[in-house]
Amino acid sequence: MTEKVSPLAPRLYPELPVLEGVKLASIEAGIKYQGRKDLCLIVFDKPAEIAGVFTKSKCPSAPVDWCRKHLSKGKAKAIVINSGNANAFTGQKGVESTEQTAKAAGEVLNCSEKSIFLASTGVIGEPLDTSSFGEKLRMANAVVKSDGWHEAAQAIMTTDTYPKLASRKFEVDGKTYHINGIAKGSGMIAPDMATMLSFIVTDLAIDNKILQELLSRYTKTTFNAITVDGDTSTSDTVLLMSAGGGRKISSTKDDKLKAFKNALQDVMHELSMLLVRDGEGATKQVCIEVTGAKSKGSARKIAKSIANSPLVKTAIAGEDANWGRIVMAVGKAGEPAERDLLTISFGDVTVARNGERVPNYSEEEASKVMQADEIDISIDIGLGKGHARVWTCDLTKEYVAINGDYRS
Amino acid sequence: MTEKVSPLAPRLYPELPVLEGVKLASIEAGIKYQGRKDLCLIVFDKPAEIAGVFTKSKCPSAPVDWCRKHLSKGKAKAIVINSGNANAFTGQKGVESTEQTAKAAGEVLNCSEKSIFLASTGVIGEPLDTSSFGEKLRMANAVVKSDGWHEAAQAIMTTDTYPKLASRKFEVDGKTYHINGIAKGSGMIAPDMATMLSFIVTDLAIDNKILQELLSRYTKTTFNAITVDGDTSTSDTVLLMSAGGGRKISSTKDDKLKAFKNALQDVMHELSMLLVRDGEGATKQVCIEVTGAKSKGSARKIAKSIANSPLVKTAIAGEDANWGRIVMAVGKAGEPAERDLLTISFGDVTVARNGERVPNYSEEEASKVMQADEIDISIDIGLGKGHARVWTCDLTKEYVAINGDYRS
Repeated sequence: MTEKVSPLAPRLYPELPVLEGVKLASIEAGIKYQGRKDLCLIVFDKPAEIAGVFTKSKCPSAPVDWCRKHLSKGKAKAIVINSGNANAFTGQKGVESTEQTAKAAGEVLNCSEKSIFLASTGVIGEPLDTSSFGEKLRMANAVVKSDGWHEAAQAIMTTDTYPKLASRKFEVDGKTYHINGIAKGSGMIAPDMATMLSFIVTDLAIDNKILQELLSRYTKTTFNAITVDGDTSTSDTVLLMSAGGGRKISSTKDDKLKAFKNALQDVMHELSMLLVRDGEGATKQVCIEVTGAKSKGSARKIAKSIANSPLVKTAIAGEDANWGRIVMAVGKAGEPAERDLLTISFGDVTVARNGERVPNYSEEEASKVMQADEIDISIDIGLGKGHARVWTCDLTKEYVAINGDYRS
Repeated sequence: MTEKVSPLAPRLYPELPVLEGVKLASIEAGIKYQGRKDLCLIVFDKPAEIAGVFTKSKCPSAPVDWCRKHLSKGKAKAIVINSGNANAFTGQKGVESTEQTAKAAGEVLNCSEKSIFLASTGVIGEPLDTSSFGEKLRMANAVVKSDGWHEAAQAIMTTDTYPKLASRKFEVDGKTYHINGIAKGSGMIAPDMATMLSFIVTDLAIDNKILQELLSRYTKTTFNAITVDGDTSTSDTVLLMSAGGGRKISSTKDDKLKAFKNALQDVMHELSMLLVRDGEGATKQVCIEVTGAKSKGSARKIAKSIANSPLVKTAIAGEDANWGRIVMAVGKAGEPAERDLLTISFGDVTVARNGERVPNYSEEEASKVMQADEIDISIDIGLGKGHARVWTCDLTKEYVAINGDYRS
C-alpha cells in the first residue's frame, strides 16, 4: 500500500450538508487495517427508497449477491459497508457472513434483515470474520450522527489516497433539496463498473423504480465510462437512496424531477472523475472522445480500446503525443474504422487527418498539451454519428509498484 | 529503447542449417537506427510456395495490405523486411512506398513485383522513405548468403533484446528435411497476432494451399495464444514458405506431412515462447491453462482475460500467488463460470477448490512456485470440457519505462 497521495487529489473537500433522516457512523472494527476506521453504517430514520447497479462479473462477491436478492422490495433501513476484506470467493462461508451481518444489523436497528444492504471491499478470497459484527454494529449505532459523511468516505477507502465526496443542491417548487454522494475505488476500475463502491442519497422523495431507471441510465456515461486498468471487480456496487418524506415522485416525466436529474448526473460525474484521478499511480486525467463512429456502441468500444491500451497509457505517462498508438488501439477495437478517414487531436492540436500526419503540425504545441495534468484526446472515425466519451488515467511505474505488493 | 537484455533470454542460440535454394542478406539502410542492420532480403532461387497470416487490426499497415493482395497467387521470389519504421498509417504515401519497394526488388531480381512480399516494423505514422531502396536492395542482393539466418533475425529487431531463431529437422522417406524460422516482437503483442513478424521456411516441397491450412491452424495455439500487453499491432505478419524442389505435397492427408506437421508446430511454439520471454520488461514466463470451460472458445477467452489482466500480471511480477485476482479475471471474461466450482493452482500447489481457499494450502510452497522464472497457473472452471492454454509474461516497471520513452 502506498502512503503517497495522488498528485491529482482535490485541494479542498466539499462539506456535505446534513440530510434529514440520514445518519452515519464509522468505527474501527480491526478487519484488516489497524488504527483506522473500516466499518461504516448508514441508517435511515424511516426506510429509504433504494436502487442499485452492480458488477457484471460472473463471480460476484457475497454482498453483491445479497443486495441483488433483496433489492426488488426497494426499501432500505441501513447500509453496512466494510473495507479491508471483499468477502468475495469465500464460498458458503461468504454467504453466511452476509446473513450474519444483516441479521446483526437488523437486531441492532430493530428491523428485518432484508432491509439491510451490504458492501465489502478489499482482499478477495479471505473469509470475512463477522463474529464480532453484532457488537461492532451496536457500537456504531450508538455514535451515528448527521454530519458523518467525510468520515464515512474515509472508512470505505482501500488503496484510495483520498476520500471521495460530492454534493449538489437543487430546487423543486421553491424548496431546496440535496444529493450527497461518497465513493471509493482506485485500482481494478473498468468501464463495466469497478472495485468501486458508491453511496448516493437524496432528501427528495422519489419512488425506487424511478431511482433505478435514472441510476441505470446515468451509470452508462459516468461510472461505466471510466477505466483505470480495465480490470473488473467482483464487488462493484452503486446504491442510490431517497430518504425524503412526503409524496413520492413516481413518474420519470414528472417536471419535479428535472433539477434532480441534472444534480444526480453532476454528482455521479464528479465522483467518477474523483475515481479516475485517484487511479493507482495516476499522474494524468485523460478524456478520450470518439466521434463519427458507426454507432454509439461502436464509439464506446473504440474509446474503451484506447483508454485500456497499456501502450497508449504509458505514452501518456511519458507525455508523448504518440498518435501511432492511438491508431493501433482504434484498429484493435474490431469496430468499423478506415485508416484513411481517421482524424486525431491532442487538446486542440490536430496531429493526423485523413489517415496521415498533418504535415505542419507543431510537435511543440502537442508536447505542451501532454504536459498538462488533464488531457483531452479526440478521434474522429469519419464514418457516422456515433459519439462516446471515456475517462481514464495514465499507466506509471507507481501502478506496478502498488499492485506488485498489495496482498503481502 | 532499453539496452538491457531480457533475463529470460536464451543462453545459446541455435545455428540454423543452410536450406537449399534460400539465401539471405542483411544490410544497414539507415532507416532509423544508426550502426545496425535494418533491411533484410530473403531470396529464393526458384519462386517458393508461400502462405501467410496477418493482423486482425482494422487499420493494417501498407505492407500488410500489399501481402494480402498478392498472396492468392501463392508464389514468392523474395521477402523484403525493414525495421525502424512500420509504414503504417502513412496514407497514400505508404501505398506508394510498398509499390516502390516491390518494384525496386523486382528489378534487382528480374521478376514480377507481385512475387515480392513485404514487412515493415517500427514507428507508426511516419512516412517511410524508400527512395534509396533500389540501391540498397542491389547492395543486399550482392551479398546474399545461405548462412544469413542469425543476421536476418537481428536485422528485423525493434525493441527486442535478442534475436529469435528456431529450427527442426525431420525425415520423410528416409531423407532429412528442415524448417528454419525467425521472429521479432516484444511489445504490442496480443493473442490476435502481435507487433510480430515471423518468417518460416522449409525445404520440403509443399503446395501453398497446404501451407496456408497448416499455418492458420497452428497459429491459433502458438502465435495467437501469446500476449504481452493485449495490444494488437497494425503490422503482424507470419509468412510460411516452401523452397523445396520436386513434386509438391498437395493434400493435408498425405502421410509425408506427418513429420512436417510436428516440426512446424514445434518451431512455431518455440518462436512464440521466445517472443513471450522477450516481452517488454518481462521477468517471468507464464502459462495460463484453463480446463473445464463450456467450450474451447470459452476457455480461450477466460485464459486471455487472465493473461491480459494488469492486476494479475503485476501480482506475478511481485511473486504473489494472488488467486483473488485470478477469480476477478475469470469473472470479468463474461464467459460461463460459477464461483463455487472454480479450482485454481499455481504450479502443483492448489490454493482454491470449489470457490474457497484450500484450508491447509502452504503459502510457503505457493511462494516457491512464484519465485521461479517459469510459472504455470491452472484454472478449472468445473462446467465442461473446454481447454485452452495462453502464454504471457509479467508486468513490471521496466515495461512502463520502455514504453513511456519509445518514440522520442
